[in-house]
Amino acid sequence: MNKFKTVHVASGGYDVLIGRRLLCDAGQLISLCRPVCKILVVTDDNVAPLWLDKVTSSLRAAGFETETMILPHGEGSKNLSCYGRLLERCAEAGLTRGDMIAALGGGIIGDIAGFSAATYMRGIAYIQLPTTLLAAVDSSVGGKTAVDLEAGKNLCGAFHQPRLVICDLDTFSTLPDEILSDGAAEVIKYGVIADRKLFSAILKGKPDFDAEYVVETCVRIKADIVGRDFYDRGERRVLNFGHTVGHAIEKLSGYKIKHGHAVAAGMVYETAAARNLCPENIVIKTAEANKAWGLPVNSDFTAAELADAAMLDKKIDGGRLALIIPKSDGLAEIREIDAADFAAYLKAGEMLLSGVL
Amino acid sequence: MNKFKTVHVASGGYDVLIGRRLLCDAGQLISLCRPVCKILVVTDDNVAPLWLDKVTSSLRAAGFETETMILPHGEGSKNLSCYGRLLERCAEAGLTRGDMIAALGGGIIGDIAGFSAATYMRGIAYIQLPTTLLAAVDSSVGGKTAVDLEAGKNLCGAFHQPRLVICDLDTFSTLPDEILSDGAAEVIKYGVIADRKLFSAILKGKPDFDAEYVVETCVRIKADIVGRDFYDRGERRVLNFGHTVGHAIEKLSGYKIKHGHAVAAGMVYETAAARNLCPENIVIKTAEANKAWGLPVNSDFTAAELADAAMLDKKIDGGRLALIIPKSDGLAEIREIDAADFAAYLKAGEMLLSGVL
Repeated sequence: MNKFKTVHVASGGYDVLIGRRLLCDAGQLISLCRPVCKILVVTDDNVAPLWLDKVTSSLRAAGFETETMILPHGEGSKNLSCYGRLLERCAEAGLTRGDMIAALGGGIIGDIAGFSAATYMRGIAYIQLPTTLLAAVDSSVGGKTAVDLEAGKNLCGAFHQPRLVICDLDTFSTLPDEILSDGAAEVIKYGVIADRKLFSAILKGKPDFDAEYVVETCVRIKADIVGRDFYDRGERRVLNFGHTVGHAIEKLSGYKIKHGHAVAAGMVYETAAARNLCPENIVIKTAEANKAWGLPVNSDFTAAELADAAMLDKKIDGGRLALIIPKSDGLAEIREIDAADFAAYLKAGEMLLSGVL
Repeated sequence: MNKFKTVHVASGGYDVLIGRRLLCDAGQLISLCRPVCKILVVTDDNVAPLWLDKVTSSLRAAGFETETMILPHGEGSKNLSCYGRLLERCAEAGLTRGDMIAALGGGIIGDIAGFSAATYMRGIAYIQLPTTLLAAVDSSVGGKTAVDLEAGKNLCGAFHQPRLVICDLDTFSTLPDEILSDGAAEVIKYGVIADRKLFSAILKGKPDFDAEYVVETCVRIKADIVGRDFYDRGERRVLNFGHTVGHAIEKLSGYKIKHGHAVAAGMVYETAAARNLCPENIVIKTAEANKAWGLPVNSDFTAAELADAAMLDKKIDGGRLALIIPKSDGLAEIREIDAADFAAYLKAGEMLLSGVL
């Protein structure tokens, strides 16, 4: 087998394996922690031609029975209609409670396949095989699964931990720049809220990109935070930095703006809005990192539009909204405000932005 | 407030309140254990004219904000399409993580509303207000939620505990005999697998029916068993007595045969099939109790058809199927067989039945 590094996610009792050429070893790696069973590999039509045969061959060589389902790529598949088709496919494939789903792809595939695993027969095991930087550093770890409603993104889902995450860094080499950058936004997020060294390492953009260091560091940060607050009611909310405005941007754009790109701009908005509470240069530095990765630093939407679109965000609880404030010690704190004050708060940030960017 | 008995379900940390005229006190009772919030009351078009106004008035009097959703009655509503509409309704009503769903109705409403609560924003609180005997003694307690797939019943769902169950026994007086009998099948089940005194009490049918004693006894039995095996991997499976064949009968009938009626016949089939392993008279006694409640003791389907329809049951795990065997001590044990042997097993039972019924 090829070499890999292991990050143990103690809260879920599973490992994240990080290395190169790992998808070809997927069967062997899974068989180390799971008995032989039937595995439905869920992927999309972008990923399938590149990696699906390698994965199913490896699984079969290790004794697993395989079935496959290929969804259209993109956020358009992350809805209840595709979820229903995926569940019926599980049934058609004869999956029972002892069988598994493997999510081979980016965050969308991981979210919908994970939610299907969370709810098929009230929960079966699943494995994450992330093929994008975003999925590797963020969505494949931590057990959040979801699909979108008409009313908003990720409004339907469950907490369901994977049994194993295998991150093959070679998959990044097949990513278009835009998709790699989409993941870089989440890396910038970890840099701002939790790790200055990581932030420096990512600040120069793709030429300096050390995939193994970045993925391992991000996964360790996320595993630590999730371990202390699995259900996202306390500290875990720092991982939502940039996401309240980010989700609003995605929604207002009709999901034409990708998640990471929206979060990148969201981080700048949210930092500018918190300008009196966080280090002065943090807006500038965040915008600088975004630019190095070709990520946006603002949007076409007004503060009022963004605040309005954020009002159904599931992060609003009892009329309160949690702001994430990056602090001078390189970490972040959570401050709750009345959701009704969010528009004014964003408006103040918008005025700052028009001056500095 | 009106008097009630309380059964505490320790595994989920919630109470089941059993008494008369309790729906008129729903607001006060809920406010004892939950802060004031918005509550979406989900019900069906049979139940709404009888009880919905009483519930929403009581909730509003206690300070809760109320929204309602009325689904068509019957198993036809327990699918992903209605589930999607219910989730969108939650969003439209502006429910946030601190808000709640109340399921006012029978098992179908409890299952779909509970599954919506389990997954809306990755889980919000919900309350069960069972209005049928079946929901009161079985589906409203224990945290199993589900909707049906095309491929089979309850194939999609989650474990999600209610925060409170309020069982108003007055609701039973509005039930047609057929619906009351449907719940009696589950009571007979508890009698066979766990409590001979209960079995004797139910054996004479509706004229002798003591609703308070029956509901309290059944809920205590279920709370005990679920407390020892929340995730249905071990002892809890005894509650599936009659259900493997019962679900097959429901499915083969295109869900024209109601759940309790199918389970009633299922208990007779399963007991007959286990004839060498359980007390001799148990087939006869079970059939006698069914008849006293106007419940079936067999079906129009052959053993081969039933076994075939049971093959996608989620109770089959790794090719093994758990049989529930009533024992001479009034309890039941679980015996696993190869799913492939189930047809022959049922066939032997069918031959016995043709002789004794």
